[in-house]
Amino acid sequence: MSDKIKPRTISGVLELLPNDQVVFNQMVDKIRKVYESFGFLPLDTPMIELSEILLAKAGGETEKQIYRFQKGDNDLSLRFDLTVPFAKYVSINQNELAFPFRRYQIGKVYRGERPQKCRFREFYQCDVDVISDKLDVIHDAEMVNIIYEAFQSLDLAKFTICINNRKVLNGFFEALEISEKKVEILRIIDKIDKIGEIAMREELDKIGVSQEKINRICEFILITGNTEEKMAQLKEMKIQNETFVEGLLELEKVAKYVKQFGIPEDCFRIDLKIARGLDYYTGTVYETFFDEYRNLGSVCSGGRYDNLTEYYTDRNFQGVGISIGLTRLYAQLKEMGLIKTQASSIAQVLVVPMDEKASEFALKIAQNLRKNAINTEIYANFYKDMKAKLKYADKLNIPYVCIIGEDEINQNCVMLKNMKEKTQRKVGLEDIFEAIK
Amino acid sequence: MSDKIKPRTISGVLELLPNDQVVFNQMVDKIRKVYESFGFLPLDTPMIELSEILLAKAGGETEKQIYRFQKGDNDLSLRFDLTVPFAKYVSINQNELAFPFRRYQIGKVYRGERPQKCRFREFYQCDVDVISDKLDVIHDAEMVNIIYEAFQSLDLAKFTICINNRKVLNGFFEALEISEKKVEILRIIDKIDKIGEIAMREELDKIGVSQEKINRICEFILITGNTEEKMAQLKEMKIQNETFVEGLLELEKVAKYVKQFGIPEDCFRIDLKIARGLDYYTGTVYETFFDEYRNLGSVCSGGRYDNLTEYYTDRNFQGVGISIGLTRLYAQLKEMGLIKTQASSIAQVLVVPMDEKASEFALKIAQNLRKNAINTEIYANFYKDMKAKLKYADKLNIPYVCIIGEDEINQNCVMLKNMKEKTQRKVGLEDIFEAIK
Repeated sequence: MSDKIKPRTISGVLELLPNDQVVFNQMVDKIRKVYESFGFLPLDTPMIELSEILLAKAGGETEKQIYRFQKGDNDLSLRFDLTVPFAKYVSINQNELAFPFRRYQIGKVYRGERPQKCRFREFYQCDVDVISDKLDVIHDAEMVNIIYEAFQSLDLAKFTICINNRKVLNGFFEALEISEKKVEILRIIDKIDKIGEIAMREELDKIGVSQEKINRICEFILITGNTEEKMAQLKEMKIQNETFVEGLLELEKVAKYVKQFGIPEDCFRIDLKIARGLDYYTGTVYETFFDEYRNLGSVCSGGRYDNLTEYYTDRNFQGVGISIGLTRLYAQLKEMGLIKTQASSIAQVLVVPMDEKASEFALKIAQNLRKNAINTEIYANFYKDMKAKLKYADKLNIPYVCIIGEDEINQNCVMLKNMKEKTQRKVGLEDIFEAIK
Repeated sequence: MSDKIKPRTISGVLELLPNDQVVFNQMVDKIRKVYESFGFLPLDTPMIELSEILLAKAGGETEKQIYRFQKGDNDLSLRFDLTVPFAKYVSINQNELAFPFRRYQIGKVYRGERPQKCRFREFYQCDVDVISDKLDVIHDAEMVNIIYEAFQSLDLAKFTICINNRKVLNGFFEALEISEKKVEILRIIDKIDKIGEIAMREELDKIGVSQEKINRICEFILITGNTEEKMAQLKEMKIQNETFVEGLLELEKVAKYVKQFGIPEDCFRIDLKIARGLDYYTGTVYETFFDEYRNLGSVCSGGRYDNLTEYYTDRNFQGVGISIGLTRLYAQLKEMGLIKTQASSIAQVLVVPMDEKASEFALKIAQNLRKNAINTEIYANFYKDMKAKLKYADKLNIPYVCIIGEDEINQNCVMLKNMKEKTQRKVGLEDIFEAIK
């Protein structure tokens, strides 16, 4: 015993038991299917990039969290998101790609965070982006449509997709003559759901915003009503600022297209307090919340950016994209009991030959089931007793077991057990498909 | 220009253009589908493991090639295969898993090799393994069945699955009293296809094997005939060695079951010169070759192992598994022109509204197509001319384009272009599905 190495997995990663992994993969499959249904092309960039490339823009927290190492002469890092590798990819392949270039990427990213509950060092991001030299604002609305279809398909909980526009925010700050504090103000506003209005006011006061301007900020970001009413109130403000007016026009267009896309009104909201921390967003920004689990924070976020590739190429690209942080989402939902594991199995049928003599007949039946697109597993450890075999099927949630012994071979049939209903009956070979449908 | 960072990807990785990525993903999907059709459960272990865990058994080449780095107090490494993490996983979760535990894992692994053509530093492995306290030899035959179905499904080229048994080899060496040179002999035998019989004889001579014994080795590993004939000749040798006899019995059983599984005779062969380099194999070993492209080497290999988890746990597990090195396989086939990219696209229909006014009608049609499981993309950069839009569809190999302008809206129809046949006609909304099937 003393010479054994204690088997263990590093902390901060999600290593699931098989039945949970099946459910996780089903979520990935659903997201992928939705992304592909909108014609997004798959991309698969390496986990490892040159540090120089990944850190072109990063700094601060990102740089501290990155997994960085030397191999030979190369200074390498593990990717910390899928956006920077995407910018690199587009810059490299700009002459080969057809624009607007629509891509999705579902893959793991790495951040050396101090591990805590539902904070991961390795986690999946599921991204879609569309990028082009010039990109009509209808694409911003399409992202709302994609988020909507993805979360409809995941069928987890009632959700609302919230949008805002950075130009509206920036223009508003310019009009109030507080743009020089913009970054700090955005950061503070972004926290209102966590800390509340009073604490937010205090923080704004602390950085030197006057009470009158704090009042105007609150009035602005806490505007109420449905989409039309909010738009009307924003226009009534008659803010004479070019950026604000441009942003308002974009917001209005996005809202119009969102309606054309057929997104139900109760799943979509303009929310002027959404800012998104990342400073590369320049127009529309997105956050998505579960109505009853607002405390989870945004489960799908993104935005429009004007020049993501600026560090790599002189050519200007506009883009818009969103991302689902699937690992965290899964872990949170699992903890809350919102994920059902019971119903899932990979094999639909377990074929059990009673002994070695029954194998030939059993193998034929299994092959035949597979040819008819039914996932079929053979339980072939003959030495185990029937109780162990059925327990196995139970543990894997396999709904049907086909038992095959001498009688069944002679009668050209199988003993079909329905594991859920705990019933069994003899079924002729031609009737198996009917019986397990 | 001077302040731009030259965008580039590290060497030794496969970063594909979208149309190629679609093909690559189709291959992954096919393999996954076959693995699941046999009831294998998915696993997804982290890319990063503790170095102590990964290197429990490794050494020599592996240790030199590994990506290893320090983060905080942890000595970490990127996984170099999926087998060691599997052994770790089974050791950790042995009380939670149902045995025989059947798992597949498709994921990237990392080896810091000197990059050369078709040698990768990051590459996909597609593994299946089944593991249990005791595992009937029928599982060894099932692996042949899985390889067969996987390569049938990939539909790349005529292939042959070759098997051998380590016990047969070891017993033979014992009987010849050359076991102390076993490891070297196996390594030399393994190279016969690359270096030929003469060079192999020379190498055996160099390590001190007598001419008489070299003759017997050659006679043995170059045995001819079909499976039955080979088995008969091996029995006729009447080698009085327990290990040999045991191995022969296993080989015979595997051959029997392979027949029961319905594997065509021309896709399966006993090949006594197959040894597999890795020393953890203890029984059946597999290699798979394309008949016409033997120079590619084995495209799917594996074997039976008796105690993979011995470094982590006292409990004994028997296992058998195979692996497809997909990245290398893809790259080789692509270079040989054996991979067709042309036919693939993600979107089946491109919906093109002529202008902003046509968007509402266009969006409805797109939504409706998606509801009917047809991947549909909207070309929404209104400012582009029609020529650019059609060129876009062409580049992405999208087979159908639905053009929508004022006329179409008024007549409640679309202009449907068949991009391959270069034809177009007006189609009523209810007839679209029929027209694009």
